[in-house]
Amino acid sequence: MNPDLDLEQYLKRQRLIVEKALEAALPEKTGPEARIVEAMRYSLFAGGKRLRPILCLAAADTVSGEMEAALPAACALEMIHTYSLIHDDLPAMDDDDLRRGKPTSHIIFGEAIAILAGDGLLTEAFVLLSDYHTLLPERALRLIGVIARAASYRGMVGGQVVDMLSQNKPADLQTVQEMHSRKTAALISAATESGALAGGGGDEQVEALAGYGRDIGLAFQIADDILDIEGSTEVLGKPSGSDVARGKVTYPAAVGLKGSREAAQKLVHHALAALEIFDHGAEPLRALARFIITRKK
Amino acid sequence: MNPDLDLEQYLKRQRLIVEKALEAALPEKTGPEARIVEAMRYSLFAGGKRLRPILCLAAADTVSGEMEAALPAACALEMIHTYSLIHDDLPAMDDDDLRRGKPTSHIIFGEAIAILAGDGLLTEAFVLLSDYHTLLPERALRLIGVIARAASYRGMVGGQVVDMLSQNKPADLQTVQEMHSRKTAALISAATESGALAGGGGDEQVEALAGYGRDIGLAFQIADDILDIEGSTEVLGKPSGSDVARGKVTYPAAVGLKGSREAAQKLVHHALAALEIFDHGAEPLRALARFIITRKK
Repeated sequence: MNPDLDLEQYLKRQRLIVEKALEAALPEKTGPEARIVEAMRYSLFAGGKRLRPILCLAAADTVSGEMEAALPAACALEMIHTYSLIHDDLPAMDDDDLRRGKPTSHIIFGEAIAILAGDGLLTEAFVLLSDYHTLLPERALRLIGVIARAASYRGMVGGQVVDMLSQNKPADLQTVQEMHSRKTAALISAATESGALAGGGGDEQVEALAGYGRDIGLAFQIADDILDIEGSTEVLGKPSGSDVARGKVTYPAAVGLKGSREAAQKLVHHALAALEIFDHGAEPLRALARFIITRKK
Repeated sequence: MNPDLDLEQYLKRQRLIVEKALEAALPEKTGPEARIVEAMRYSLFAGGKRLRPILCLAAADTVSGEMEAALPAACALEMIHTYSLIHDDLPAMDDDDLRRGKPTSHIIFGEAIAILAGDGLLTEAFVLLSDYHTLLPERALRLIGVIARAASYRGMVGGQVVDMLSQNKPADLQTVQEMHSRKTAALISAATESGALAGGGGDEQVEALAGYGRDIGLAFQIADDILDIEGSTEVLGKPSGSDVARGKVTYPAAVGLKGSREAAQKLVHHALAALEIFDHGAEPLRALARFIITRKK
């Protein structure tokens, strides 16, 4: 990988690789499965950034240059991320009508099918991972454990619960960190950790990349909180200022905008330090870490 | 296993083994995880029959006499079954306030936490399965695939979609079979198939037990439809006649009560025939098949 990496080109290329793999993993269906798969695909192909799968592939690339080995994990992560968005948007949760500039699943398909589309995507991630024939079975099992734990009550589901229970309460730093670490950083860390595992990384490499993921995952969410205040609705594809409007606990609410920017920068520096054991093969991960706190949407 | 099996005693003993394993698999938590785990446990320990885990253990017992090898699979199946009940009961789905005589999850915890408790249980099943260190890794992976597929849009999730989309429409036999096969029989078949896999069964044994599960799974659901008409609210722990009241497509609506009873009996005979390759070790499975169409709740 060229150290003078054109990140925009890189992201575009990787996104295409991910989209193609997702298309193969969840093709359209006919008959009684047509409707549910249509709903699953609607959200899966709604134009996400594909950050988690791209990080997963980049981690595999970093440890071995064999990006393809991580494709099933990458697709599973995107399915899990998408399921979490569908459920988060439900009327009983954040009640969002718009996601990435498009109507949310329950607006298009109704609440029942939206819940089931989320359930179907979460389950499909594990169908895909159970078919991981390019890895040694013991490594595939370890990888499934990493991803499942990150999605579980220890991680993503737990973070969403903290989110729900902390709304309209004073934002203290501990609660915000607890929420972001679980809700966002856990799955992003699982992305780089599972990528490292799929790429055949040794324990030191796997640990370094898991730590990198945790740091940039938290930085990503802090940047999201900042964008929600500073970004425009048009660029974000969702109403800006919506966190504040619905009484969400955010990083800026806890430590201010300046404090939030400093915290994100510190995390990115820490993430970059974790990559010091790698050579220029980690250049995409370095560029991604910097991108996360400079992006505009 | 004694051929003069006391099924009631057997079920009671097996239920205790399952409860103990579930308790170890999902103990109470403190801190930020306390609430979500409380909600997951509320439904997991709400007094279910434990039919799927008991069938899973019985299948392992049948092929090898080593029931314990199937305990993680058995617990995972019960978690998946419980998650499906929580989501099915939601206001956007069946809108049920009562389940097994107790208030449903969303009545106690609110809709948001109920959705997340379901998500958490589904995910936890795969956390548990990824830790399947008592099996050869390749067999554990195969088992994960069997359970994930049964829970996916190909199985349970797909069946619930057919259920949602067919309400208040004329009941034709094909739709009812499609719905019951996916919604109920798929996971019950996965229970006996995964039990056979965990017990170290050969391909012929695994296939026979998967077929047995499919047949009794469908028979179980037909019996459920009949009980909904003939059972009393008090014994069922939920209002009888509720299928008809909410315009559900049922087996009796499609082929009548007599036709339904005959269909269930035929399925049980077919299931018993699949067990002919086993000796008296399959006696619990034989008794369970007969029990399924004679039970009163």
